[in-house]
Amino acid sequence: MGFKVLDGGGVATPAGFQAAGIVAGLKRSGAPDMALLVSTVPATVAGAFTTNAFAAAPVQYDQRIVAGGGAVRAVIVNSGNANACTGEQGLKDAAATAACVADLLGVTADEVLVSSTGRIGVPMPMGIILDGAQKAVAALAAGDEASAIAARAIMTTDTRPKSLAVELTVGGKTVRIGGMTKGAGMINPAMKSQPPQATMLAYITTDAAVSRAALDRCVEQALDRSFNRITVDGDTSTNDTLLAFANGQAGNALLTPDSPDFPAFFDAFVHVLGWLAREMVLDGEGVTRFVELNVTGAKSDEDARICAEAIANSPLCKTAWFGADPNWGRVLCAAGYSGAALDSARVSLDYQGVPIVRNGMDAGTPEKEQVAAIARREFRIDLDLGVGDGTFTVWTCDLTYDYVKINADYHT
Amino acid sequence: MGFKVLDGGGVATPAGFQAAGIVAGLKRSGAPDMALLVSTVPATVAGAFTTNAFAAAPVQYDQRIVAGGGAVRAVIVNSGNANACTGEQGLKDAAATAACVADLLGVTADEVLVSSTGRIGVPMPMGIILDGAQKAVAALAAGDEASAIAARAIMTTDTRPKSLAVELTVGGKTVRIGGMTKGAGMINPAMKSQPPQATMLAYITTDAAVSRAALDRCVEQALDRSFNRITVDGDTSTNDTLLAFANGQAGNALLTPDSPDFPAFFDAFVHVLGWLAREMVLDGEGVTRFVELNVTGAKSDEDARICAEAIANSPLCKTAWFGADPNWGRVLCAAGYSGAALDSARVSLDYQGVPIVRNGMDAGTPEKEQVAAIARREFRIDLDLGVGDGTFTVWTCDLTYDYVKINADYHT
Repeated sequence: MGFKVLDGGGVATPAGFQAAGIVAGLKRSGAPDMALLVSTVPATVAGAFTTNAFAAAPVQYDQRIVAGGGAVRAVIVNSGNANACTGEQGLKDAAATAACVADLLGVTADEVLVSSTGRIGVPMPMGIILDGAQKAVAALAAGDEASAIAARAIMTTDTRPKSLAVELTVGGKTVRIGGMTKGAGMINPAMKSQPPQATMLAYITTDAAVSRAALDRCVEQALDRSFNRITVDGDTSTNDTLLAFANGQAGNALLTPDSPDFPAFFDAFVHVLGWLAREMVLDGEGVTRFVELNVTGAKSDEDARICAEAIANSPLCKTAWFGADPNWGRVLCAAGYSGAALDSARVSLDYQGVPIVRNGMDAGTPEKEQVAAIARREFRIDLDLGVGDGTFTVWTCDLTYDYVKINADYHT
Repeated sequence: MGFKVLDGGGVATPAGFQAAGIVAGLKRSGAPDMALLVSTVPATVAGAFTTNAFAAAPVQYDQRIVAGGGAVRAVIVNSGNANACTGEQGLKDAAATAACVADLLGVTADEVLVSSTGRIGVPMPMGIILDGAQKAVAALAAGDEASAIAARAIMTTDTRPKSLAVELTVGGKTVRIGGMTKGAGMINPAMKSQPPQATMLAYITTDAAVSRAALDRCVEQALDRSFNRITVDGDTSTNDTLLAFANGQAGNALLTPDSPDFPAFFDAFVHVLGWLAREMVLDGEGVTRFVELNVTGAKSDEDARICAEAIANSPLCKTAWFGADPNWGRVLCAAGYSGAALDSARVSLDYQGVPIVRNGMDAGTPEKEQVAAIARREFRIDLDLGVGDGTFTVWTCDLTYDYVKINADYHT
């Protein structure tokens, strides 16, 4: 591991980044609901966004900015209102929010990105938003504490902020990568270089100098090893957004995809995204168990993905995991209806390394040992479909009373 | 409506059918767990079975018999064990069960079908099965009471037996159609002339004389208006089976697809399947609300289906329904990630005839009225995607604490 984790770090830990989190007043609870992340100098940006056909106004706005390729300075994030299914007015509101922050920071509107998460279909209370932006700009600060405050302000049903920073050496210079995320529900990312899935928001900062091509590659390839492999409930949000900022304040020679140091930087970048993605599942709505599900032996990677997602999103598998019920029939059943090719007489299944199914039948492990393998906070499932070399990994969780409670009560 | 419903009727209501339900001893609870349905004369049979790649042994056995095209005499059904993922032994056990019943009835093994539902991956306790078969044969009786007893014996997590009979006139003769079903969990039928989805079992009997081609058509086309439009949890079982028997005891001239009376018979047949399918959803695991979801304005019927199923299986939509939360953003969100083509600026949505979304935005109906529209045992959702003429209807339900409880505790 060519990097070290910085305890307590986050998005404002890399040089030249500032963050803030404040109470704008969008949430009835009075909890923090607005975050601002700023680079003191223009930063290269890369992004990935939801593929949902009802992509929220801020997503549409950001996609245009990111596609433009210019450097940016800030992103303003609100929780409590998604600004989705809000029509033309929603688009105007997203642009007005960016323009307001740009004014306050003395930059252009094209240098400011906007993210929203919360309830769909409710007009943005722009008075609250614009007042909040002012408070947020006034509260900007660098360092770990500001990072933690910002990470708390983007939360919705999350129970804890999720933030991380790492440090490594690139071309003789110390560079840092910070990140924060929120998730909890509507979590089933499937982002591409432009697209995630789920109301997940994630922000990555680095003080390394990174070319746009290199940052794009980091985002695209790291997604497949992090947010794109997680699912809480199979619901893909209208607002999913991942944004990565590189401001060059570490003073390293510009990293390109061909730089000798790129692989080390990429590894650290993947670590940050992977850690945040795992944390998101662990803090998913009502989650009591984290499950790493590896499907192998599929006809193709795509087949492995289809199979893994069917299992990961099966209410019957997820409730069995909640009950620490080894009920492997439900896992095979979900594989069986997923549409993935498999050889029912060659399928094998392991829980946490314990043989559960061999040749499509009970492997004979005593039930007590099967239960012991999964009656834990985190466990691993390996399923071999027996027909090829395709593989896919998902990180998922159980389905619990609390998930139902949180989502039946969300509105009231 | 060219038929009348016979109160208290079921599978043994049509002439020449007998049924039984007994305690074989497969369930720890001591509840009835074996049913037998017999035609006193050879009957034409049509069937539809799960598409799951791990189709259970009895499904594989029945598929062969039904494909053979010969007349049959009986089906023996056990709950408590699915005989799925049981390998060669499972296939032998299914055949041995049929052979045992055939012996007891004095018919050939090829005239006996077998169904199983219950836990996957557990070898069949054949001593219990064969003893049970003997008891079941001894308990056979015609009429409504026997129908009700049989309907109870096929239940797993169902809370009540589901059975129905109707009567109509065909070619001057009174003919009857009876049916019973069990469902509760793993309910997402998608059967074709050979295929349903879900551990749903359904048996239809009629004393009408019906050609194989006509019975095949009844099953195939009625499925699309009944079991194929329901989903409880999106999980498609290894054991789904629908079997329809026609024994000709009503003495009518043989019904073919071209008979003038075929449409009336088909309507009655559809009514029986539709009623049973609705009852299955209403008695789904933990269900408190029944939702009819009509998607219209889709690019194609297939697109409408994809969209409807995404909504019907969305944990966020289902938990909102449980909470009587009108949260229409979740419905649009699920439509948006379903992959169905839609025009986000033209989408409209109604709850129980109350306008909720117009042109992709809030229709302005006061929240109280939105809540009133869905705070009921059964309600209807109409979603127009605004891009074409494709339509699809699903019947689904909410996701509740009790669903989680039932499925986290199933094993223990």
